[in-house]
Amino acid sequence: MLIKTIPSFNKKKIFNDPIYGFITIPYEIVFDLIEHPYFQRLSRIRQLGMSYLVYPGALHTRFHHALGAMHLMGRAIEVIRSKGIKITEEEAKGVTIAILLHDIGHGPFSHALENSIVHGITHEDISSLLMNNLNTQFKGELSIAIKIFKDQYPKRFLHQLVSGQLDMDRLDYLSRDSFFTGVSEGIVGYDRIIKMLNVVDDRLVIEEKAIYSIESFLISRRLMYWQVYLHKTVLAAENLMINILKRAKELSAKGEDLFATPSFAEFLKNNHTSSSFKNATIIKKFTALDDVDIMASVKVWVHHPDFILSRLASMMINRRLYKITLSNTPFTKNELKAQLNIYRKQYGLSEKEASYLAFTGSISNKVYNLDSDKIYILQKGGKLIDFAKATDQLNIQVLKKEIIKHFLCYTFEG
Amino acid sequence: MLIKTIPSFNKKKIFNDPIYGFITIPYEIVFDLIEHPYFQRLSRIRQLGMSYLVYPGALHTRFHHALGAMHLMGRAIEVIRSKGIKITEEEAKGVTIAILLHDIGHGPFSHALENSIVHGITHEDISSLLMNNLNTQFKGELSIAIKIFKDQYPKRFLHQLVSGQLDMDRLDYLSRDSFFTGVSEGIVGYDRIIKMLNVVDDRLVIEEKAIYSIESFLISRRLMYWQVYLHKTVLAAENLMINILKRAKELSAKGEDLFATPSFAEFLKNNHTSSSFKNATIIKKFTALDDVDIMASVKVWVHHPDFILSRLASMMINRRLYKITLSNTPFTKNELKAQLNIYRKQYGLSEKEASYLAFTGSISNKVYNLDSDKIYILQKGGKLIDFAKATDQLNIQVLKKEIIKHFLCYTFEG
Amino acid sequence: MLIKTIPSFNKKKIFNDPIYGFITIPYEIVFDLIEHPYFQRLSRIRQLGMSYLVYPGALHTRFHHALGAMHLMGRAIEVIRSKGIKITEEEAKGVTIAILLHDIGHGPFSHALENSIVHGITHEDISSLLMNNLNTQFKGELSIAIKIFKDQYPKRFLHQLVSGQLDMDRLDYLSRDSFFTGVSEGIVGYDRIIKMLNVVDDRLVIEEKAIYSIESFLISRRLMYWQVYLHKTVLAAENLMINILKRAKELSAKGEDLFATPSFAEFLKNNHTSSSFKNATIIKKFTALDDVDIMASVKVWVHHPDFILSRLASMMINRRLYKITLSNTPFTKNELKAQLNIYRKQYGLSEKEASYLAFTGSISNKVYNLDSDKIYILQKGGKLIDFAKATDQLNIQVLKKEIIKHFLCYTFEG
Amino acid sequence: MLIKTIPSFNKKKIFNDPIYGFITIPYEIVFDLIEHPYFQRLSRIRQLGMSYLVYPGALHTRFHHALGAMHLMGRAIEVIRSKGIKITEEEAKGVTIAILLHDIGHGPFSHALENSIVHGITHEDISSLLMNNLNTQFKGELSIAIKIFKDQYPKRFLHQLVSGQLDMDRLDYLSRDSFFTGVSEGIVGYDRIIKMLNVVDDRLVIEEKAIYSIESFLISRRLMYWQVYLHKTVLAAENLMINILKRAKELSAKGEDLFATPSFAEFLKNNHTSSSFKNATIIKKFTALDDVDIMASVKVWVHHPDFILSRLASMMINRRLYKITLSNTPFTKNELKAQLNIYRKQYGLSEKEASYLAFTGSISNKVYNLDSDKIYILQKGGKLIDFAKATDQLNIQVLKKEIIKHFLCYTFEG
Repeated sequence: MLIKTIPSFNKKKIFNDPIYGFITIPYEIVFDLIEHPYFQRLSRIRQLGMSYLVYPGALHTRFHHALGAMHLMGRAIEVIRSKGIKITEEEAKGVTIAILLHDIGHGPFSHALENSIVHGITHEDISSLLMNNLNTQFKGELSIAIKIFKDQYPKRFLHQLVSGQLDMDRLDYLSRDSFFTGVSEGIVGYDRIIKMLNVVDDRLVIEEKAIYSIESFLISRRLMYWQVYLHKTVLAAENLMINILKRAKELSAKGEDLFATPSFAEFLKNNHTSSSFKNATIIKKFTALDDVDIMASVKVWVHHPDFILSRLASMMINRRLYKITLSNTPFTKNELKAQLNIYRKQYGLSEKEASYLAFTGSISNKVYNLDSDKIYILQKGGKLIDFAKATDQLNIQVLKKEIIKHFLCYTFEG
Repeated sequence: MLIKTIPSFNKKKIFNDPIYGFITIPYEIVFDLIEHPYFQRLSRIRQLGMSYLVYPGALHTRFHHALGAMHLMGRAIEVIRSKGIKITEEEAKGVTIAILLHDIGHGPFSHALENSIVHGITHEDISSLLMNNLNTQFKGELSIAIKIFKDQYPKRFLHQLVSGQLDMDRLDYLSRDSFFTGVSEGIVGYDRIIKMLNVVDDRLVIEEKAIYSIESFLISRRLMYWQVYLHKTVLAAENLMINILKRAKELSAKGEDLFATPSFAEFLKNNHTSSSFKNATIIKKFTALDDVDIMASVKVWVHHPDFILSRLASMMINRRLYKITLSNTPFTKNELKAQLNIYRKQYGLSEKEASYLAFTGSISNKVYNLDSDKIYILQKGGKLIDFAKATDQLNIQVLKKEIIKHFLCYTFEG
Repeated sequence: MLIKTIPSFNKKKIFNDPIYGFITIPYEIVFDLIEHPYFQRLSRIRQLGMSYLVYPGALHTRFHHALGAMHLMGRAIEVIRSKGIKITEEEAKGVTIAILLHDIGHGPFSHALENSIVHGITHEDISSLLMNNLNTQFKGELSIAIKIFKDQYPKRFLHQLVSGQLDMDRLDYLSRDSFFTGVSEGIVGYDRIIKMLNVVDDRLVIEEKAIYSIESFLISRRLMYWQVYLHKTVLAAENLMINILKRAKELSAKGEDLFATPSFAEFLKNNHTSSSFKNATIIKKFTALDDVDIMASVKVWVHHPDFILSRLASMMINRRLYKITLSNTPFTKNELKAQLNIYRKQYGLSEKEASYLAFTGSISNKVYNLDSDKIYILQKGGKLIDFAKATDQLNIQVLKKEIIKHFLCYTFEG
Repeated sequence: MLIKTIPSFNKKKIFNDPIYGFITIPYEIVFDLIEHPYFQRLSRIRQLGMSYLVYPGALHTRFHHALGAMHLMGRAIEVIRSKGIKITEEEAKGVTIAILLHDIGHGPFSHALENSIVHGITHEDISSLLMNNLNTQFKGELSIAIKIFKDQYPKRFLHQLVSGQLDMDRLDYLSRDSFFTGVSEGIVGYDRIIKMLNVVDDRLVIEEKAIYSIESFLISRRLMYWQVYLHKTVLAAENLMINILKRAKELSAKGEDLFATPSFAEFLKNNHTSSSFKNATIIKKFTALDDVDIMASVKVWVHHPDFILSRLASMMINRRLYKITLSNTPFTKNELKAQLNIYRKQYGLSEKEASYLAFTGSISNKVYNLDSDKIYILQKGGKLIDFAKATDQLNIQVLKKEIIKHFLCYTFEG
């Protein structure tokens, strides 16, 4: 009967996507990679972390984003080929896998917790590491994908499609984040931009006609930073999450036994760094960790005897976030101190403890903006020029400028 | 400084909604109710349970649905008033609160787990109970809302707006589920239907012009049942969840110590029924339970020594769901037995144990379709007629007919 | 300089379409056909005639519809090929041209005026005739297209893609009409339906999974009939147009010299039938005729000395349409007579003249519904069944039933 | 029977709008104004003139735009009132009428033909004049509307809602033009902008939160200019229309009898200026003129014996537009002359005649950009600042800068 035959999956599966309609799986190996636990984990990691506390629709996952970016890659390949640029089937498969797996190394709430859960290793590094693991499992089928991902493949424009000024990652995440938050001004003309892609001298360029679309894309991106990614309430939520983890680690280091799911406990109770990832067990634990582990543990900490931890956890779970005040100039020590003293008196806290309830910090758009490479515009005559020079409107220097906003977070009585 | 003043929240908060654009909070008490932990919990309960395993965008929560239904209620009130039907401010507030809280008693994955986590008490009962609690906390301000919810308020059309053939609950959930799954045919003309609402003899009716919109609404709803709510892979996932919980309870009853978050442990280790809800502690535990608790525990069970439990949990986490075959007629005992025997031999299982890996069942659209009340059409001359008679196309008898689909679920080697 | 070189058009032109995003021209000959005056004329013929008087957005043209249907054809070809059905490049080009030109023979306001401007010849006949002309101009390149259009090509499923129960014509016009009118319930899941197309025994079939989409499609179509195509105010406008032309022809036959554009004058002053189209001059005049000619002439007739003509023309231009009453049973002669007598007395009209101001008639959904061919569902096992039997819900007999609505139109004082 | 009773229109009519869903008529007089022939004429004047030759969906009319802007005005009134700013019912009606009628004086293809059909009078002047006429017909009911329109009403922010940096006109036309062309990047967050409107010191301001939406709005507007309004093929079409009219007037002045509809003939054969509008007959003719008159006449001129006129008319009707080359610097006389000489020789034309076939010109974004008034941002503390200073990104000086593009148009052999 049924059980004896290994079922032949229909690997032509179609995913519904509210943005693009349907997403078709282009290669059998892509189907297998999607089935892999590493990739399935992404369906439990939200793309925008805590932002759903401000934008209740923003629950979309890195899983869906990876599929979406893969879908756009398919279109980009088609457009570029139609312009006479050669992309072999192997290369097409490679660049498709590279975009599919570009975020495979992300941990839970990674915007907030990137440096809290593990140290000294970026999510890109972990992505590379996991891709290598997969490459072993898939007997070398990912070799080209890995080269493209690491920018070690000769046709360098393929890497730019994965990671560059106009890569499929950005085009998808801006479209997707805008769609699910409902911030309609963030909409990006991904369709027109992709239609206007071309390759000159092994460099991804954009045809001149799309210059206004690029302006619009950059301004949309900027709007999304300030309206969504760096929204002050989102900042408050992320800092709350950071402080919860910091306090939990502190208590844990003191020998307190904190509730945590086993995967989370590993990272809570030990300080893992880059070198830990040489250990297969750690990789296994890391790839079992997702948003669920964090939230489940925070929920339990609401009832922890430590005043600080339970207070912070409760603020998260019941959405009583820090109040936050923004300023273009740093807050003075005295401003903060006055606030801290009130908490110290009221709750009998040390200064260090009080600083979980009120603190200052700063945020910069730079984190999103590591734009070392330029956008090249292909003019009608065939000449390439820097977009920064082609636009008469956008002040690219200003757009690239690091903007620092200072903030003061504090809790209130209650 | 800051801490001493209780911050005056801006209770005119606006929520972004990708479907309606903006949702405005109409009353101060609505703001306070949304802030309440009972309601915040809904932001951790997905509207469509496991459906995201089939439709990756279907991650929207009961929190967002409740806000959406409240938004539609605002429009319905406006339309009905514009037709000369009186709704006082107190009634408007009441019906708004009633729709906001109509799902407050839902537990996690309630479509699958409604009878597994607690017994002999429906989510509507729990909603009533929690509303009563809130009414106490809010000093009686919810009294009208509760009467409307329970259909004890004199103007009975208000109840129909909350729960009836064309209530704001359905209009929102069909729109929302269709939007987030990306099943575009499920789109409902909520706007037109609301514009055509009217009240005759204290009964919610729909103006004749909207007759084709109603046909379209019923067909969309049907499409959503079969394409989404009763999608066979969704069924497979829900039955997997049911079996996981069943096995966990079985082991727990035998004295095995299973990992579980504390709130979940309460319901895993005890059989709570209607009477348990007289106990404030149980209510507290129940209102602390959400999707996160279940998923976090299932994740840990992947590594449990019990073969069945770990197998099922791993199937869930890594999306290796049951294979499922549908049939219009029941499967025979022999068909199932043959399959069970294979598992028994292969894994050395008892028949009871094997039945976690293969089993039959049936599903009926009836669960969604308890349509005892009719839709009344208001004809031009002022006469009311039953929609079933007004439509020459839809065979309402057929539409209401219970359709039973039988299924066989089984796992496969590997 | 420039003039000496015949410009090399970029025949890879892209059209913007608010529905599909972008429409790409797939073949050079398609570009040339779009440039041809026969096709350009379609940009001055609205798809929905007078419907813009009810739905102000419904101004889209047959030109845009033809491009849209061609776009869908491209997708259908891709899907069908991906299922292992062979379609050669020549056949793909043929079926693409066939759909592009399927409406080339339509005259202005053809829903209303089909039998008024010319007699005894359908728009399909004229389409055939014009395609033959084009075939001569394009040296036989349209031969396959014409065979497919006339259902004389061996692979008959290609014809079904152009004209059949689920052809690209319908999928586009329902989507387009729904989009531009703003009747959101009319939305059709064209994407899903196309993905589910297949070919069995040279017959276009639809895979079982799409059964609910087909139900939804049929109900959407029905909604569009009654809400848009046969909307009572649209009927009133169309009958007004018919009567204007009838009166103008009557006056013209009596020797009155009516203002008309030259192309229109030809058809106003002569009764052209099928045989006229053997004459190249008539073809030239017909292919110069569009909405503009009719409206420009009607505008001038507002000031014509004939009471009836000027009255009707003014009603059209100033949107003082007939009032219209619908009924399931025919109106009696007496009902009409009473009304006519009033006009006769008031304006001193003969009965025949008065009948321009009040008249009865009937409309049937049959005109849209010549569905002799069935929709075949391809079941999982490979069996084909009639959709009418596969659906447990839709009463296909009822859906196909001719529904006759009787109407009484009349004008009012003032 | 029926005729004796003046029918009581249901003045609560609802219009379908694909952008906003439904548009409701707020006042009885608004219904009557919409019914007026002056307003009905707008349903035969396209918002974007010839742009449909590039964007085939861009057929929307000034009629639909006026309804849309009225709809947004309703929302703006609601928002502003909700912030405690008083707007009386009379004022609300006034500002609603003012926006409804703001474009009532537009002629056909007015972007191209504004200075060709009449001279020395702007469409705003004609709008004022027609509003005065209507005010007489409606017995003074439009007095407040007219004052608001002319900025003579004390509450000056009402005028700003009709005509200002963030008026409902712009918000609607950008949304509408973007929607119907399919240029998705042009989408404007009208909803958010309106929600953030406020009034300080009788001045319309925008709350600080909306600053990124304003940036996005300005960049979208800019994109729409270059991608749609000043699209080079649109320019080519508009210049073709201008030249057709110029040639027709030239021939007419020489005594040639040209076909034209009577309303058009009046303006073709006479040079009407501001003073002509004192004459009621001229007003009557002007308000009978629309796109239909122009196109019908151009269609006939295809067969006119004058080589130039027939050539140009045929280019328009068959969409064989001028080829156009853009440049940032002016074209030299020699460049043009060389081209003209070729035509002169080939067709035996005078230089003046040849200049209908090739000519240079320039276009500036200034025409759209008469932004003398500033956008004021309302900061949290209540301070107003100039948006130009509030934005760190947009270089407002550059945005406001007049950009001149030079073009060379020419025809080609064939």
